[in-house]
Amino acid sequence: MKLALDLASQGIGQTSPNPHVGAVVVKDGKVAGVGVHLKAGEPHAEVHAIRMAGAEAKGADVFVTLEPCSHHGRTPPCAELLVEAGIKRAVIAVLDPNPLVAGNGAERLRQAGIEVVTGLMEEEAAALNRFFFHFIQTGLPYVTLKSAATLDGKTASKTMDSKWITGESARRDVHRLRETHDAILVGVNTVLYDDPSLTCRLDHPKKQPIRIILDRSLRTPLDAKVVQDGLADTWIVTEADPEGAHASALKEKGVRLIRMGSGRSLAEVLQVLGTNGVTSILAEGGSEIHGSFIKEGCFNEMVLYLAPKLLGGRESLTVAGGPGFSLMEEATDLRFTGSEWLGSDLKLTAVRKETG
Amino acid sequence: MKLALDLASQGIGQTSPNPHVGAVVVKDGKVAGVGVHLKAGEPHAEVHAIRMAGAEAKGADVFVTLEPCSHHGRTPPCAELLVEAGIKRAVIAVLDPNPLVAGNGAERLRQAGIEVVTGLMEEEAAALNRFFFHFIQTGLPYVTLKSAATLDGKTASKTMDSKWITGESARRDVHRLRETHDAILVGVNTVLYDDPSLTCRLDHPKKQPIRIILDRSLRTPLDAKVVQDGLADTWIVTEADPEGAHASALKEKGVRLIRMGSGRSLAEVLQVLGTNGVTSILAEGGSEIHGSFIKEGCFNEMVLYLAPKLLGGRESLTVAGGPGFSLMEEATDLRFTGSEWLGSDLKLTAVRKETG
Repeated sequence: MKLALDLASQGIGQTSPNPHVGAVVVKDGKVAGVGVHLKAGEPHAEVHAIRMAGAEAKGADVFVTLEPCSHHGRTPPCAELLVEAGIKRAVIAVLDPNPLVAGNGAERLRQAGIEVVTGLMEEEAAALNRFFFHFIQTGLPYVTLKSAATLDGKTASKTMDSKWITGESARRDVHRLRETHDAILVGVNTVLYDDPSLTCRLDHPKKQPIRIILDRSLRTPLDAKVVQDGLADTWIVTEADPEGAHASALKEKGVRLIRMGSGRSLAEVLQVLGTNGVTSILAEGGSEIHGSFIKEGCFNEMVLYLAPKLLGGRESLTVAGGPGFSLMEEATDLRFTGSEWLGSDLKLTAVRKETG
Repeated sequence: MKLALDLASQGIGQTSPNPHVGAVVVKDGKVAGVGVHLKAGEPHAEVHAIRMAGAEAKGADVFVTLEPCSHHGRTPPCAELLVEAGIKRAVIAVLDPNPLVAGNGAERLRQAGIEVVTGLMEEEAAALNRFFFHFIQTGLPYVTLKSAATLDGKTASKTMDSKWITGESARRDVHRLRETHDAILVGVNTVLYDDPSLTCRLDHPKKQPIRIILDRSLRTPLDAKVVQDGLADTWIVTEADPEGAHASALKEKGVRLIRMGSGRSLAEVLQVLGTNGVTSILAEGGSEIHGSFIKEGCFNEMVLYLAPKLLGGRESLTVAGGPGFSLMEEATDLRFTGSEWLGSDLKLTAVRKETG
């Protein structure tokens, strides 16, 4: 199962909106076939593994990180495939919360006389597919808040200077983080102050996430990199008239405008983005945007790059501004899920307790 | 040497103003004597180890974490003792920066024909005595900034609520941290808002650090715990008239007032405290005090307890306020020296690069 999970994780950043799945066929204690799902529309992990095993699949065990599907999607159901191949035992890490599957896959196997074991390395398998599980159950994208801060929680000085907080190693890691999400989200102030390109600058990025700008009154300038560079799709969520001159000019540059009623909540924004097929979002701030995600309870995870520096300043910007909570006991509880040294900086990850 | 360092660390929190020293006498590959310096005025580590070794000391090796003293203090010089005992070889982790010793101890041993090796586990030995080394070289107390914060760097909500940020395990650790310092320092606002007792509440504290309040206009109330409870010494650094009625009332309660001219810098405050024998200070905030220590460059180390919570709020208090630096590149550089999970919280330690 460890191998199956390692295989599954190769699909990170490229299977959306599908989950990451790995499968291993074992016959007489020897690996007979391995498979991984690499891209939506292409064969599932089980198909690859069963094909590779060939005649050996008969009477074999299969280890699969996610419950085999039981429905006809773009590919035929994998549960049927396992039955036809004559698999004797199926070890499943975690059941598929997709309402189209949700136990039906395992049930189909049992009906066919296959021994089914579930729950092996369940936590790891669920964590691997946390974006997919959240999206399939709620229809909302999984939201990761990302920030880089000094030890005293500052993201920029009072003069809005933020270059650089962390070292090269941490900044490179941000690009890996971008690659794993469907979209990157920032507020228009970040575009106005930093003019970032918001692309994934790895040597061979698996994809370029969509760039989403929250911009109520459509202040994104025409000469902003996200408008001009054409390196990735750019969507602007706005309350402004989509037929105005500035809106039209943006649209001519290929920007997609998503208009929402005034006073829209973040929950409503996420709903619309989910409907448009966005299953995961990396929110990169700034401070006020993060503050809103926290106050409105609209996030799932936090990734914090912490630099061993102290900036001070009551007017400096912090990781999260906005209105904030009035009492410490109202603060949103998370659970640390990881820490990693990156050069002289520290990367911390934590998930919201409700979603963890 | 590892054993000698372990021995030396037993003196943490109780040898001030003396350093922590451990010594091990080894004869024919066997430990013949061990010693540790436990309290100022009592025998040094070498004395205990040589006494224990007795006749075995002749021709033996001694491993000592700090250069043996060469001067007559409250106890006779240890270098002489090693010579008299007939030690053959002395392995010294780090030379003593105390100008009264500073190589003289090692030199005395060499003159007597003892083989001297220095630098074994030097970094660990210097870190163990970083308070002492800093104080003996500068005459200023070693300053540790301590803070407990949410992941977004908040120490209190906009309503000044801060209970509780971290869990029990982290809060207990703060008491161990207090025990290792000569004094605890806070600003008067912390006294006014939180009325803390600022004592070390371990089962058997080695000592109660002095409580130092920075209070320019002498606003510390007579009924504050630090004034009333008599559990530890309380010093107030003030610019107010020490003969006023409030000052007299405080003095009657045993509080010591240290008067400084108006517009005193933190460097000047530290100078006065150093002159009064304070070798180490744990600054516990609040936000403005930490901001001043950072801006004025008057600190050596930061200990941060990070809770997996997000509070948000542009008006929430942060780890460090004050004027702050205007540019990120002006931020004070530190170097992470440790991380430790305490319950669901994370403890991070970092030292200033100049002093690290």
